[in-house]
Amino acid sequence: MPKKLTYFNINGLGEPIRYILHYTKQEFEDNRIELGNWPDLKLKEKLPFGQLPVYEEDGRVLCQSLAIAKYVARGTDLIPSDPWKYAQVESAVYSVLDYWKNVTPVVQEKDQAKQKELVEKLHTETIEYYFSRFNNLLKENGGYFSGKLSWGEFILLGIIEAGNLFLGTNVEKKYPAIDALVKEIRSLPGVKEYIVARGPYDFEEIKARMNKQ
Amino acid sequence: MPKKLTYFNINGLGEPIRYILHYTKQEFEDNRIELGNWPDLKLKEKLPFGQLPVYEEDGRVLCQSLAIAKYVARGTDLIPSDPWKYAQVESAVYSVLDYWKNVTPVVQEKDQAKQKELVEKLHTETIEYYFSRFNNLLKENGGYFSGKLSWGEFILLGIIEAGNLFLGTNVEKKYPAIDALVKEIRSLPGVKEYIVARGPYDFEEIKARMNKQ
Repeated sequence: MPKKLTYFNINGLGEPIRYILHYTKQEFEDNRIELGNWPDLKLKEKLPFGQLPVYEEDGRVLCQSLAIAKYVARGTDLIPSDPWKYAQVESAVYSVLDYWKNVTPVVQEKDQAKQKELVEKLHTETIEYYFSRFNNLLKENGGYFSGKLSWGEFILLGIIEAGNLFLGTNVEKKYPAIDALVKEIRSLPGVKEYIVARGPYDFEEIKARMNKQ
Repeated sequence: MPKKLTYFNINGLGEPIRYILHYTKQEFEDNRIELGNWPDLKLKEKLPFGQLPVYEEDGRVLCQSLAIAKYVARGTDLIPSDPWKYAQVESAVYSVLDYWKNVTPVVQEKDQAKQKELVEKLHTETIEYYFSRFNNLLKENGGYFSGKLSWGEFILLGIIEAGNLFLGTNVEKKYPAIDALVKEIRSLPGVKEYIVARGPYDFEEIKARMNKQ
């Protein structure tokens, strides 16, 4: 059953899928597209909705990062069996994505002065609003979204890391329960070795490569 | 087990949950907030992330429309048992929400001339891009996202109806597989009677009420 994940050579929405695949010891082809080569129109038109990540298994194609993350986590402890807990994890993940929806327009802002202003607002308003709530959620549920580690916390980590890469900071440091969770997932068997092997992502290098386009 | 769904007195992200609850014959309190009374700060600060819909059951609270829709559909035929089909439905739903992310800024645009221009672009670009793909997906999968009716098609209907209310049109008419699906869900036992009982939503009336604020 050959598995292949195609995503950019960066963290973001595809990275938690890589983490889950490594943690659950699944072999897969880690196909990476350089951001400087995007949009690759030939690849883009073959994608169901023109977007990455895309996951392939036995010739079948699945798009959308959350659907892929949950699919590759199926049959493992990362999927809560209790329906209410399952829903709690989903609910938390959608709120994580709501947070991310506030960040992406700031990343994409071309006017540097305007971007600086928006980054300031992200720190003082958006991050504090969402992260204080994520922190409370974790504290109230034994350090996780719903009592134990699930696919959902991997998504939170992926979004935090993507934000940190852009903001040049570690937003989780002010939030003890989130900070502990981030450290825990990064130390998981499989994940830990993968992070060492891939090395850090370099945002300046990525930006420089994109600007060459 | 008293169930309560709180959402605006309009369609949108909360309406497919109402449809699923009626179709699966679950009794619930249909608590409706008039848009003209929003933001209701007293209610808003009690919500986990300040947003509606919110679902309550036995004193427990769940937010995020997709998490709620899937939770109330649990244990019914609306949840595919095959993991790949389950993932296909999720994937389609996330693409439906991606479409919606393109519509909401247009709804919120205050400048009337700019809004008119954006609506034009929605019709010529966004709607055609997504709806031709949704239509193909349905055609290739027996009229549904994955072989048979699931919670996912209810989400598609909810988003279509919310868009139609704003655009004053029926975008599905140009897409035969989507049009057939819309008609089918609206005729389902439980859904059909609910639609008759609630009557149509009136966007002009809603706007007028909001402008009074």
